[in-house]
Amino acid sequence: MKDLTIGIDIGGTNTKFGIVDREGVVYHQGNIPTTVYEKFEDYFDGMADACRKAIQDLPAGSRVVGIGVGAANGNYYKGTIERATNLKWKGVLPLAEMFRQEFGVPCVLTNDANAAAVGEMIYGNAKGMKDFIVITLGTGLGSGFVCAGALLNGHHGIAGELGHTSVNPAGRYCNCGKRGCLETYVSATGIKRTVYKLLADHLEPSELRGISFDNLNTKMITEAAQRGDIVALHAFEYTGRILGMKLAETVVHTDPEAIFLFGGLTLAGEFIFRPTIKHMEENLMPLFRGKVKVLPSALSNQAAPILGASSLVWDHLEKQQTVIS
Amino acid sequence: MKDLTIGIDIGGTNTKFGIVDREGVVYHQGNIPTTVYEKFEDYFDGMADACRKAIQDLPAGSRVVGIGVGAANGNYYKGTIERATNLKWKGVLPLAEMFRQEFGVPCVLTNDANAAAVGEMIYGNAKGMKDFIVITLGTGLGSGFVCAGALLNGHHGIAGELGHTSVNPAGRYCNCGKRGCLETYVSATGIKRTVYKLLADHLEPSELRGISFDNLNTKMITEAAQRGDIVALHAFEYTGRILGMKLAETVVHTDPEAIFLFGGLTLAGEFIFRPTIKHMEENLMPLFRGKVKVLPSALSNQAAPILGASSLVWDHLEKQQTVIS
Repeated sequence: MKDLTIGIDIGGTNTKFGIVDREGVVYHQGNIPTTVYEKFEDYFDGMADACRKAIQDLPAGSRVVGIGVGAANGNYYKGTIERATNLKWKGVLPLAEMFRQEFGVPCVLTNDANAAAVGEMIYGNAKGMKDFIVITLGTGLGSGFVCAGALLNGHHGIAGELGHTSVNPAGRYCNCGKRGCLETYVSATGIKRTVYKLLADHLEPSELRGISFDNLNTKMITEAAQRGDIVALHAFEYTGRILGMKLAETVVHTDPEAIFLFGGLTLAGEFIFRPTIKHMEENLMPLFRGKVKVLPSALSNQAAPILGASSLVWDHLEKQQTVIS
Repeated sequence: MKDLTIGIDIGGTNTKFGIVDREGVVYHQGNIPTTVYEKFEDYFDGMADACRKAIQDLPAGSRVVGIGVGAANGNYYKGTIERATNLKWKGVLPLAEMFRQEFGVPCVLTNDANAAAVGEMIYGNAKGMKDFIVITLGTGLGSGFVCAGALLNGHHGIAGELGHTSVNPAGRYCNCGKRGCLETYVSATGIKRTVYKLLADHLEPSELRGISFDNLNTKMITEAAQRGDIVALHAFEYTGRILGMKLAETVVHTDPEAIFLFGGLTLAGEFIFRPTIKHMEENLMPLFRGKVKVLPSALSNQAAPILGASSLVWDHLEKQQTVIS
């Protein structure tokens, strides 16, 4: 019998899901729109229907042994989504329990950055590592910590909110209500804000002067940098410097073996990795210098969110076996 | 048979040791000078001798089941002390292995702040807690993290160096080689430096103007604050503000239930706790506000370093039993 897991990534616009084996091979992939359902119960019914159809299409001799869910503000301990700013359903949504009852298998739920961290451990570049951090650079900045081989959840189930450490208490406005949070500088949105700041402050010509804020994206900034655009190059240097300085702070907390960067911004390669590593090393306490690797995630592809979510189940089942044996 | 553990705290000047039961009752307490031994081997022989004599004096029906050692730069994984700036013996000192061979019992070694954290969990105010942080405020600022019920060691065995996070990259010179580290502001030495900065910048009269830097200590600053001395009061406000702002950063990393403050500076009570809590809450990401307690350590007494070190053994033995059973 081939064991498979369902991975579900709940985004504000779309919910991606897939059925995956222990090696990360994707047997089925699909998505349903998140926004069209006014009631949470209707959304759940839609999602459960889609999963049931996908299960029917599986090859004979295979079975689903669990469901993993990654979602913004997902609470690992409670299996709930709480006060997610990117979803229209308010209150506490007991999603893990609903999946458990519907499908009769374990369901593990956590936030998307934690799912990315477990995904890196199960399928990616962190195989065999016990202490590492994954930083997800998307609309915001998320982070997942693995310490001593286990996901760090914290007392309230909300550990790893590095996106809301402070770069400048009087700096850029943040969705969380504070000012100057790391994610307002280091994220797909953050580097756009930096480009616009540089265009405002400086006189240099730049191909980015012809693009509106709403149209500008990380790919355009990367391509401009590849063509030698001075504003784009400075924007990456500035982004990497801030990320590097903050990683130097984070490293002395949990002493990781490696830090993995995940998301579209990392496709800029050396433009983002070089200043990040340089400024991390320069700002590190000497005892830690030269010890911590900064590496690209192995999961930077379309199926990454599904792999991250499905990996939660393998991790859960394997930890249980360790305790029993 | 009554099981006891030896706790050894290696300081730059004195080595304190004691024999302690599971409830924290101290059966024997002593110390030997650290500085008089030119060779590390002679220091170890002196320490082993003192332990053997103490063991002979124990009541009948008791036995020593392990040795715990707390020391600056102690490495938990290797059981060694490496490059400790407060000791004259250079190189890597394999102390845990030497104790194991000499006494035939387990020996657990870690840095002094980690020992304080385990001590708080075994004997102190963190009993039953799974996720908390201990901050030690002495000559420097040390920290020990407990996550999911276990001491956080990190990949290289050097996690929890909060004293060397950055307050101001162009700030006060630090022993570690960097500038502006947290411990140059928040520690017994840090508040002295703050008092001298305030005396230099301002005109206000203060009883602290009559005391030299070398003679000034935390107790004098606390007593001046109790008498309403404006410089002393501002020094505590400034120290607590910086500590609170940095704790707000730390909280979003590991999401603790509580943070315990340990050391002489905490005897100032509300003078240090009030601004620390106020500025931590103000700077916290809203999701975490009102969730994390800042409390005094229960081990702020003479025997605290011995209790911290001895607790390492109970923690080690109890974790082993969990795995076996």
